[in-house]
Amino acid sequence: MFSKEEREAIYKVIETRRDIRSFKSDPIPIDAIGRILEAAHHAPSVGFMQPWNFVLIESDEVKKQLAWAADKERRALTIHYEEDERASKFLSLKIEGLKEAPLTICVTCDPTRGGSHVLGRNSIPETDMMSTACAIQNMWLASCVEGLAMGWVSFYKKSDVRDILVIPPHIDPVALISIGYTDVYPKAPILESANWEKRRSLQNLIFKDKWGNK
Amino acid sequence: MFSKEEREAIYKVIETRRDIRSFKSDPIPIDAIGRILEAAHHAPSVGFMQPWNFVLIESDEVKKQLAWAADKERRALTIHYEEDERASKFLSLKIEGLKEAPLTICVTCDPTRGGSHVLGRNSIPETDMMSTACAIQNMWLASCVEGLAMGWVSFYKKSDVRDILVIPPHIDPVALISIGYTDVYPKAPILESANWEKRRSLQNLIFKDKWGNK
Repeated sequence: MFSKEEREAIYKVIETRRDIRSFKSDPIPIDAIGRILEAAHHAPSVGFMQPWNFVLIESDEVKKQLAWAADKERRALTIHYEEDERASKFLSLKIEGLKEAPLTICVTCDPTRGGSHVLGRNSIPETDMMSTACAIQNMWLASCVEGLAMGWVSFYKKSDVRDILVIPPHIDPVALISIGYTDVYPKAPILESANWEKRRSLQNLIFKDKWGNK
Repeated sequence: MFSKEEREAIYKVIETRRDIRSFKSDPIPIDAIGRILEAAHHAPSVGFMQPWNFVLIESDEVKKQLAWAADKERRALTIHYEEDERASKFLSLKIEGLKEAPLTICVTCDPTRGGSHVLGRNSIPETDMMSTACAIQNMWLASCVEGLAMGWVSFYKKSDVRDILVIPPHIDPVALISIGYTDVYPKAPILESANWEKRRSLQNLIFKDKWGNK
């Protein structure tokens, strides 16, 4: 079903995709946005519940409010690093580009969608959120092949984002996604280059038949 | 960075990928398994925490135990559908192929990896599980381009799977993945063809600037 070239394209995008925090203001072609959202909507979901919604934010005023919520959370978190040698490193990291990116997408998860007994979610409730994460990963790969940069911001209190976007209390705003063009698309994860965290050896993460059995 | 052909390949795999429950016993080439796990390990993760592990299960004895845990859960869930017209439909659905598939992978999430204050996870703790879901989606796309079928089983009690695979109490066995060749790779999701759930209109899931604003 897939040619060698197609297979190589998949592995190429999986390996080159990066989490980006710096964006140019150039607008995004509307058909690219359409393809990225279609990719999200074709993600797998537990019991086919499709628990996602997408709030597309282009208003500068709303973006400014979201950036305020993220910055408030960043400053609050700094306090948790204050007795840590990482504090100054943390403060120097650029953790979001919400005001720069031409498009922000708030991806939400509706745990009530599909009724009270969604197949599979009945046993493991957090599979609704995991389905939404699969949709986000599809968006990331789609953005990457469109030549667009994407960043997933998780620095905020959900209640702030609910207030700003008027999201009902039972809906979970699981991610703020920034999308735009960028000048810098690094080869390695930003947190790896910044010496914040190392890539682990895959071999050490694999076990055979039982946990701990190499 | 990506050609038109490469872009089309990505959308093709995103759209054709299906959740499969029927497998042939033919063995999987070891290098394909390697590429699928590499794809998982190249998923994004919050604070670059890489919270995943992969328990590869080829032992028939262990597979039999996992299938027992899944079947026990299936029968328990049937009771929740008993006053529902869906009960007989539920019972007729094939929900797992754990004993058929030549390879089962238990994907786990370690919420303690990366220490107490993982960047981003500090604000939204469930981003560890969402990162693991991104890894699973990469595995799915990789399996699909390898001509392999994959199924994500979430019918089990985590405590049963922990007992069977000797997984420590703080590690979360978030998914049982079946991988193998199949004779039937449907065009539409199985739950859609079985009239269990419909594909929603993407247009209805998109809002502009605020929740509810079309």
